[in-house]
Amino acid sequence: MAKKQKTFKPKARVPRGFRDMAGDELYLQRRMIATISDVYQSHGFDALDTSAFEYADALGKFLPDEDRPNAGVFALEDDDKQWLSLRYDLTAPLARYVAEHYDALPKPFRRYQWGPVWRNEKPGPGRYRQFLQIDADTVGAANMGADAEICMMAADCMAALGIAQGDYVVRINNRKIMDGLLQRIGLEAEQPDYETRRLVILRAMDKYDRLGLAGVRDLLGSGRRDESGDFTPGADLEDTQIDAVAGLVSAVGDTRPDMLDALEKQVGETPAGAEGIAELRQMDALFTRLGYGVDRLCIDPAVVRGLGYYTGPVYEIDLTFDARDADGTLTRFGSVGGGGRYDDLIKRFKGVEIPATGISIGVSRLAAALTLLDKADAHASPPLIVVLLMDKQTRTDMAALVQDLRAAGLRAELYMGDSAMKAQLRYADARNARFVVIEGEDERAQGMVTLKDLALGKQKSAEIENNAEWRASAHAQQTIAKDTLIDVLTDALGTATPSR
Amino acid sequence: MAKKQKTFKPKARVPRGFRDMAGDELYLQRRMIATISDVYQSHGFDALDTSAFEYADALGKFLPDEDRPNAGVFALEDDDKQWLSLRYDLTAPLARYVAEHYDALPKPFRRYQWGPVWRNEKPGPGRYRQFLQIDADTVGAANMGADAEICMMAADCMAALGIAQGDYVVRINNRKIMDGLLQRIGLEAEQPDYETRRLVILRAMDKYDRLGLAGVRDLLGSGRRDESGDFTPGADLEDTQIDAVAGLVSAVGDTRPDMLDALEKQVGETPAGAEGIAELRQMDALFTRLGYGVDRLCIDPAVVRGLGYYTGPVYEIDLTFDARDADGTLTRFGSVGGGGRYDDLIKRFKGVEIPATGISIGVSRLAAALTLLDKADAHASPPLIVVLLMDKQTRTDMAALVQDLRAAGLRAELYMGDSAMKAQLRYADARNARFVVIEGEDERAQGMVTLKDLALGKQKSAEIENNAEWRASAHAQQTIAKDTLIDVLTDALGTATPSR
Repeated sequence: MAKKQKTFKPKARVPRGFRDMAGDELYLQRRMIATISDVYQSHGFDALDTSAFEYADALGKFLPDEDRPNAGVFALEDDDKQWLSLRYDLTAPLARYVAEHYDALPKPFRRYQWGPVWRNEKPGPGRYRQFLQIDADTVGAANMGADAEICMMAADCMAALGIAQGDYVVRINNRKIMDGLLQRIGLEAEQPDYETRRLVILRAMDKYDRLGLAGVRDLLGSGRRDESGDFTPGADLEDTQIDAVAGLVSAVGDTRPDMLDALEKQVGETPAGAEGIAELRQMDALFTRLGYGVDRLCIDPAVVRGLGYYTGPVYEIDLTFDARDADGTLTRFGSVGGGGRYDDLIKRFKGVEIPATGISIGVSRLAAALTLLDKADAHASPPLIVVLLMDKQTRTDMAALVQDLRAAGLRAELYMGDSAMKAQLRYADARNARFVVIEGEDERAQGMVTLKDLALGKQKSAEIENNAEWRASAHAQQTIAKDTLIDVLTDALGTATPSR
Repeated sequence: MAKKQKTFKPKARVPRGFRDMAGDELYLQRRMIATISDVYQSHGFDALDTSAFEYADALGKFLPDEDRPNAGVFALEDDDKQWLSLRYDLTAPLARYVAEHYDALPKPFRRYQWGPVWRNEKPGPGRYRQFLQIDADTVGAANMGADAEICMMAADCMAALGIAQGDYVVRINNRKIMDGLLQRIGLEAEQPDYETRRLVILRAMDKYDRLGLAGVRDLLGSGRRDESGDFTPGADLEDTQIDAVAGLVSAVGDTRPDMLDALEKQVGETPAGAEGIAELRQMDALFTRLGYGVDRLCIDPAVVRGLGYYTGPVYEIDLTFDARDADGTLTRFGSVGGGGRYDDLIKRFKGVEIPATGISIGVSRLAAALTLLDKADAHASPPLIVVLLMDKQTRTDMAALVQDLRAAGLRAELYMGDSAMKAQLRYADARNARFVVIEGEDERAQGMVTLKDLALGKQKSAEIENNAEWRASAHAQQTIAKDTLIDVLTDALGTATPSR
């Protein structure tokens, strides 16, 4: 006998750090994308879809949210020796697109885009190497009307998703206020260690929410040792400098104008600070006129929002309700997106500065928030009707019945497998079907069908405590005349409005 | 003076073989995806979204449509030395997904998926390295009801997109009929050159539509020299063998049963052929009962549909109207998708055969067809209203006006740039806005606004022949009371139903 050769059998597994998405989670994500797209679009932004790949040199490395200049991208060499990278965000491709088509585009250019981005990083719990972003940007508008619109639109997106007023706030700051602060404490761009010290200071301010004033002061001074014993070196500022930074970051004001007055006291005498405050006052005028209260849009000097490329207003969408983090501790849910004004990104290609401002929302993190807030239910899969196939001889008739249900706008399928009734019921259950339609031989003779309401059945079996009571109950099942089936089902479900 | 250092300025360009998509083209594509998703979903298929990357070993190389086992994928080595490949279709990831989650999935497993796929191939005109597919598959159903459903659903998709009956047809064949043919002419799987000769024969049959019977006969015999002088070697079959293949491929029948009778005469005496015909008869019974005529679903023995992995029924969605190809010659538009039964793909992982059948539709090619058929208009961008900013002092008031328009369900934006009126009108034109709203100083004092209908303006300027007549005409412009603006606009546009 010939020796049997072993054939290669690959292991079926999704790649490390990647994930598949299905079911209610996917429907929720799509409904969110549709909702946010509608908001962006109603504001006049047009859809754009750029290619997944960019040339590595054109992409550069400009991650806005992260202080990791070497954060990884997925890159490969093309057969013409040029390096291709998968986009790591939607802003860098926008900059490339605008630079490539500048003369042909309407100015300002207003686009929204959603799609996957890829980061070649070490995956962790809830941290994937591919995730969805949905962005809107206005390119070629220098005035604060553009920034104000983006902030109001961000608040509108949260409201459109059903997040209650009070559960979200867009926190707004201006990079120029921070520049003013640095001027005030005597840090100047010409100094050799300016960039390094600036980063350490911004990073410290960014931690105000989490560490409080004492923690920030430590980080501005000699450094800070956390509970685990890890030591973070400090900025080694002098006490008067620390006082100034701490004073700014902890400034308070009940209204936006109050807060701006408080900030003006801190940095209003520096040219950059004065400019930053004037810009925020222009934005505030629009917010106030259009009815956006401080509970939806607030000024917050602790918003740092990435260390890289922002040059003016920066903003962060913050979900303010409490949620348990990975360790089980109750903390504020936190940021689900943000953005700001960046005037230099397109300059890389064009040589001239082109003002731009925009926002990016992280879809998965926001989906997690909606699930916690119990706002995800409304987005669940469209209800399904499974028609069983009790006798293979009746396949064409049962298929015609399903066709009638679909023609009535219902979402219906004939069981397509080859198993017996019990397995068919298990299938309907696994599909999370809402109704099962059964036409047995006797029912067929009498022009009747049996309709099982699986949702009601589940509810009843949760309510009913003992087995006898269960058997005596209606079982959420009824036998009805076949020619009333469509009416009964459309009464119960309405006609299907499928989600995607 | 210090020497000025030249900074690196990358050239902004989309990578070779890739493309961006915007405007009406993108809206059309999205509307198509939504329409086809709705059809798939109404049949009970659930959405799935797999990761862009697969492990190279799990992906394998199983391109259904192409006879190129070495067709390129985009691959890179992960830092744990495993090779990752971007998916080249949506079927291979489905096979991996089903194998990975087999025990937890409802059986049959019915999913639809759409998304980009990537092929690392030489790009050409209209040939890109990233494109969209939208698939539906039933996994775990061996019976012909599943195949019949896919074919009817494919026809439903074309109808839902607005393609007129007669402009499309789903052509159906069965790989077993071809196996029967090979049996009849004495080719057996045990023969050493079986696979090679089989491929040459299938490839010849596949060309029947294009080359006619004489061309196919040449390819089955000693080979064929085309108009350009290129020679394709033939299958070197004997005359009786050629007669048999030619007889099958050119079989005719006015109805599906007639065609099946004709095919039965050709291959009905071989076991494979008889089985293939019996399967198609089962499908025909469903088609007929559910009212799908031969003009929508036909049996066509010349459908080969890829040489690789199909094991039973194969089907192709064919658009039958004439269109000019790249050379300007008028030809039948041709295939926009297809699929078939493949029982071995999941076996690679599981070791056991899992029956599956499904379809894949190519979105860009179908979009091109809809544009040719003038069915693309209905999918255009949602109408936009641009409100001009005549005086920067009025920014907050004008922003409030735009807010009112949006609250009425209209898609409206305030001009966000910093240019004067002429540039603002050019902007509205470039955005393809439907209406422009202008509030000049005098109008403001009188509570009036000017409304320009840009679409009507374009139409009028096309109709009006001379300049004098043009100036005398209404200019598609009216001055109305500001408090009637919303009514006038909603009368003209309805409320916005944004597309994505």
